[in-house]
Amino acid sequence: MRSARALGTTEQGATPTVRDIERRDLRPDDVAVRVTFSGVCHSDLHAVDSHTDGSLLVPGHEFVGEVTAVGADVTGFAVGDPVAVGNIVDSCGACDMCLAGQENFCREFPTLTYGGRDRRDGSTTLGGYSTEYVVREGFVYHRPASLDAAGVAPLMCAGATVWEPLRRWNVGPGVRVGVVGLGGLGHLAVKLAAALGADVTVFTTSAGKEADARALGARDVVVSTDESAMTAVAARFDVIFDTVAVPHELAPYLRTVALDGTLCVLGYLGSLPVNMLDLALGHKSVSSGGSAGRPHTQELLDFCGEHGITADVEVLPSRDVATAFDRLRRNDVRYRFVLDLADLAD
Amino acid sequence: MRSARALGTTEQGATPTVRDIERRDLRPDDVAVRVTFSGVCHSDLHAVDSHTDGSLLVPGHEFVGEVTAVGADVTGFAVGDPVAVGNIVDSCGACDMCLAGQENFCREFPTLTYGGRDRRDGSTTLGGYSTEYVVREGFVYHRPASLDAAGVAPLMCAGATVWEPLRRWNVGPGVRVGVVGLGGLGHLAVKLAAALGADVTVFTTSAGKEADARALGARDVVVSTDESAMTAVAARFDVIFDTVAVPHELAPYLRTVALDGTLCVLGYLGSLPVNMLDLALGHKSVSSGGSAGRPHTQELLDFCGEHGITADVEVLPSRDVATAFDRLRRNDVRYRFVLDLADLAD
Repeated sequence: MRSARALGTTEQGATPTVRDIERRDLRPDDVAVRVTFSGVCHSDLHAVDSHTDGSLLVPGHEFVGEVTAVGADVTGFAVGDPVAVGNIVDSCGACDMCLAGQENFCREFPTLTYGGRDRRDGSTTLGGYSTEYVVREGFVYHRPASLDAAGVAPLMCAGATVWEPLRRWNVGPGVRVGVVGLGGLGHLAVKLAAALGADVTVFTTSAGKEADARALGARDVVVSTDESAMTAVAARFDVIFDTVAVPHELAPYLRTVALDGTLCVLGYLGSLPVNMLDLALGHKSVSSGGSAGRPHTQELLDFCGEHGITADVEVLPSRDVATAFDRLRRNDVRYRFVLDLADLAD
Repeated sequence: MRSARALGTTEQGATPTVRDIERRDLRPDDVAVRVTFSGVCHSDLHAVDSHTDGSLLVPGHEFVGEVTAVGADVTGFAVGDPVAVGNIVDSCGACDMCLAGQENFCREFPTLTYGGRDRRDGSTTLGGYSTEYVVREGFVYHRPASLDAAGVAPLMCAGATVWEPLRRWNVGPGVRVGVVGLGGLGHLAVKLAAALGADVTVFTTSAGKEADARALGARDVVVSTDESAMTAVAARFDVIFDTVAVPHELAPYLRTVALDGTLCVLGYLGSLPVNMLDLALGHKSVSSGGSAGRPHTQELLDFCGEHGITADVEVLPSRDVATAFDRLRRNDVRYRFVLDLADLAD
């Protein structure tokens, strides 16, 4: 086994602390990655808060680093390559979803980057808040070296979560896109949609975010609590990406969807009431999305490399993970925390 | 004014009875239609049951007949032409929806065939349970003379309601279509989807409807209360048309929707809980629909003429309207009642 250091916890709700862990010896198709930066996702908080079995939990499912070793059969990566890893690290590879490049919907359920079950030895996966990660070649992605590494980390979860529906709904030149909420997902949705050539409007509850929204690439900003402003954009948008992370009414946003348009709910994966009449009048749709498969993930990184896009991040040394968690609980971040793991390696 | 006879009521919940009514004298762009058959839609029951203002209500918004007179400016119709009229008889003609051929979504709200407000004189429209209807040329449709007239009447509402989403969701050869419920809408959805070349499966709660479903054009039938049968068709369908007229769970049907597919809820236009996670896993959509605009309505009639498609109807003389209403309340009809208005004209 290979030794590494990580930030982990065995206690529900406790901030991860430094500890030694082991990584598996490389299998023929494995890549060892020295992790340099790991993004802090809302789901990391959720995982810690719902962790009750006393096992070791190491969060982190959007991270970047360099390849330090490769297995005998690895052909796509060499030592020193800049790479990135996202929220899944394996899948069956044989079902219809995997064959369609949608490993994120694998019929046997994809192996999650942490808290997942390794398909070969049954062990529990430990995440990217760590000095090293060992992962199957197929779930490592080439990271454009031209991009700031820390800003790439959140592309692997927040970015992939918005990229796949952007592609699914054919966002491109001339498409009128609305983005609800300007957080980790929302700010990347704005950047990516704008880079794809779309006409982007941000919906926000806070008029103070207007300048930020425009700086990210939005052409227009609508304060969603302003009824007359909402009426003014009735039936305006071909597709709206709703990144609000708590339950909320969809009807006000559905009224701003154009004929044949779509409201894509990405921020909240629970049950919401949908009035079929709101959909009927203009045959609109409600949809959602859940991360991305391998082809779209690499495509996202390549696109970001071409367009110079990274997440806007606040980088903290890994010893400040408690600060990141506390401030994230208060939504006090623009727009994503990234842990610099250099101090963990020391 | 022109005199006509009609079946109408002024009392909430009362079965319509025979009475004399007046139709307007023809405006330059009007067509007078001698009504021969008028379909009985569920919404006719709803209109009678919710009619509380004591005014005269004449139901009927899917009917056929022949042209008996035309206004001076009418160019598209001549006396004797076989025609059909649906659930809207006017719209503003100038808004984005009207210009897009979606008069059914007119921003000024389309004028309904009964219980609507005439855009020029402000009078309340009286429906097709009548010997004559006077209507703007633009909302009259050419009816293929080759088709049984009685069976064409339900195409104008039930048919249009399924046709527009069939077209919206690109149903054609190779598309795997599910139809939930085998009533007025459902049986037409099966016939039309099959004629479009789709591979059609009917979901029903009643195993006894299997032979009927196959006769209508379904290749397969799934009894929706049979869990193993439902599991066997998981992720099978590109688009499902759900025609069940009462609130019900969508999740079991969403599980049978394929990657990127759509569940189109046509039968119940109220609010239903939708779990975003059910949509996320396979980026599926929920949509709905509400009748059709003018281009799709004529297209439907032309398509039915080419393919010899009519609704399966049970024709009753208009004096038996109470029987039709009573049996429709019990869902005792395969698949649509149509009133023969010949006795009303006598």
